[in-house]
Order: sequence, then structure tokens, then C-alpha cells
Amino acid sequence: MQNHEILEQLQNVLIARKNVDADQSYVASLYNKGIDHILKKVGEESSEVIIAAKGADSVALTKEVADLWFHCMVMLADKNIDVNDVLTEMSRRFGTSGLEEKASRTAKT
Amino acid sequence: MQNHEILEQLQNVLIARKNVDADQSYVASLYNKGIDHILKKVGEESSEVIIAAKGADSVALTKEVADLWFHCMVMLADKNIDVNDVLTEMSRRFGTSGLEEKASRTAKT
Amino acid sequence: MQNHEILEQLQNVLIARKNVDADQSYVASLYNKGIDHILKKVGEESSEVIIAAKGADSVALTKEVADLWFHCMVMLADKNIDVNDVLTEMSRRFGTSGLEEKASRTAKT
Amino acid sequence: MQNHEILEQLQNVLIARKNVDADQSYVASLYNKGIDHILKKVGEESSEVIIAAKGADSVALTKEVADLWFHCMVMLADKNIDVNDVLTEMSRRFGTSGLEEKASRTAKT
Repeated sequence: MQNHEILEQLQNVLIARKNVDADQSYVASLYNKGIDHILKKVGEESSEVIIAAKGADSVALTKEVADLWFHCMVMLADKNIDVNDVLTEMSRRFGTSGLEEKASRTAKT
Repeated sequence: MQNHEILEQLQNVLIARKNVDADQSYVASLYNKGIDHILKKVGEESSEVIIAAKGADSVALTKEVADLWFHCMVMLADKNIDVNDVLTEMSRRFGTSGLEEKASRTAKT
Repeated sequence: MQNHEILEQLQNVLIARKNVDADQSYVASLYNKGIDHILKKVGEESSEVIIAAKGADSVALTKEVADLWFHCMVMLADKNIDVNDVLTEMSRRFGTSGLEEKASRTAKT
Repeated sequence: MQNHEILEQLQNVLIARKNVDADQSYVASLYNKGIDHILKKVGEESSEVIIAAKGADSVALTKEVADLWFHCMVMLADKNIDVNDVLTEMSRRFGTSGLEEKASRTAKT
């Protein structure tokens, strides 16, 4: 599996976990606890990214970003939003030309 | 450009912006303001993801996740961490087998 | 005005600002923009607390905590929740005896 | 104990817990785990405030604000910052006159 296929592969696994018992799967247990619990995880992991980024350990920071993005993907799966829509949005906004202007306009809104 | 190539393409653009004047590029201005400012953006965007996820607008949520991941990538670029390392970590942890166990162990630590 | 009266005094001011035009008052403009905007400020300020706490400037951290608590109070006022209820809850939970057990039980839930 | 004395009373308890074994006190265990762990709790609780504020349960929101402020106070105690300095800063900034202008100037910076 190449790096660029990972998000789509992971998404497939996350969707498949919707049909698994909550006591047999961490992801299924997240769905079962509901969106508020999933969002708490997103909030937790984003704080951990910030804290790790203030430290000097790049490996630890890499793992925290992976955790944050993973829980974002659980949230997207729970809400039936395709991660490709997120990537398309990133592409549209930060596309081949005019990246800066678009990013700036969005970020300042 | 296919969806799966977007993160790498975006990363290339972000790295190229390191050599651009801060007043000519939003991304360059983020680098110039420093890591604390970039982390404030990560924190802001993660709160906006949570708030959007409590609403009913999937398009708005998709955009907020795109904003969060974009600013995470600016942070990674600022720290010279390859986004592929994040994807590899996600793959390693949530790989073809044993996804649940690994994810669970990490998340509970 | 003594320190211990500050929260109540501030709350009175925040309530009074409900009858002021949004263009004449920062607090009134927050109410006018709505709860999602107020919550974004809470999220922003909490990230800034974390970032400041990783630095060495105690005065900067003190100001960030003041900003966070202030925007929490705007949120409480917007929702007609009395700050005294928050203080009572802190007292009830972390009271004269049994502070540790109660705090522990709550925090781990 | 009146409401307005709660923060100071709580601060006294938090300082006293610095001399207690980590396995006998939740607060002492927080000190023992270190500032990063305390900041993770601050980040967690602030996300929980946001999530609760998007719901309809005022009592739940009151408890989440109490949790957030409590963990902020543990952080302040860990860093030997007096909670009265936070209150003084809130008073100075949002004082009897000119509250709006000062708050606005700070918030927009």
C-alpha cells in the first residue's frame, strides 16, 4: 500500500466498523458512544498536537497528528462525509494557482 | 490531479512558500509569525470543526476539516516533518490487521 | 473593589451589555454574532492558554487565563447561567472535605 | 463559605496538595504527571465546554465550566501564579469604565 492510498483504505475500514459490535472494536465503540464522544476525542487530540509541537520530539508530534487526523476521519465516517470531499476542498482552495489568495481569504473570514 | 496526490502536492507548495516574502503569501506570513501563531490557528480550526460538527451543514464541516488539516500541514512544513510520515504512522497503527487493538491501545494511553 | 467581588461585578456588566448596540460594545457584538462565535473565542483562548503555559512568561499566561475566563463568562451570560452556579459547583465538588475523591471521580468519568 | 471566597479557598487546597503523595490525591497526581498532562486536561475540558454549550442542558454546561476553571487553577498553582492576579487582570481590563474599549483592544490583538 502506498502512502497516498492510506486515507482511502482507512476510510473503508472505518465504514466497515459500523457493522461491528462496540465491545469488539475501538472504532465501533466510538460510534456507539456518539458524536459528542468522538468530538471530545478530536478536541483532546488537537490539544495534544499543540502540546507536542511545543516540545522537541518530532516522532511524538507525528503520532499526535496521526491521532488527530484518525479521529477526524472517524467523525467524517460517522457523519457519512467522504474524506475525498475534504481533499477536494483542500485542492480547490489551495490549487495549482492562486493558492495564497484563496487560503488567505478563507483563513481571515 | 487525483485526490490521493493532493496532500503531497500541497506539501510541495507549502515548502516552496518558505522562500516567499511574508507580505506576499498567507502561508509565508504564518511561517514569519512563528510556531505559536501557527498553533493558535490549529487550535482555532479544531474548535471550529467541533462547532460545525454540532450543526447540520455537512459542507461547512467539510470546509472546517480542510482548514484544520491545512494548518496542521503548515505546522508540519514549519517543523520539517513529512506528511508522509503521518500517513505511514496511520497505516502502521491502523493497518490491514489488528486495527482495532492498536488504535485502542494508543487512544487509551 | 476587592478581588473576590470581581466575577460578580463583571457579570453585572456583561448582563447590562445585552441592551447595548453591537457596534458600540465588544461584548454586545459577541452576543450579536451568536453562540457559535462566542464558542470559537472560548476555543481560541483555551489554545492560547496552553501555548502560553508552555512558555516562560507568567504575565502573558495570567492574561490568557483572564481572556479565557472572560469569554466563558460571556458564554454564561448569553445562556443566562449565573457564574455563582459555577462557583457553587466548584465548592460542592472540591469542598472542605473529600476534595480529592470527588474531583477524581468526576475527572475520570 | 460564600461564593466569592471559593476561588481563594480552592487555591489554598490546591497549594496544600503539593505536599501530598500522588497516589493519595487526584490533584497531587496531576502535579506529578507534569504540566503537559495538566494542559491536556485544560484542552479536554475546554472542548467539553464547547460541546455542552451546543446542547440544551444548563446543568451539564455549568459542570463543564467548573471542570475547566478547576483545571486552570491546578495549572496556575503548578506554576505558582496567584488566581488573584487573574482576577485583577480581569478587573483592570474590564473595569468600572471603558470596559468595552479595553476588552475589544485585547481581543482583537
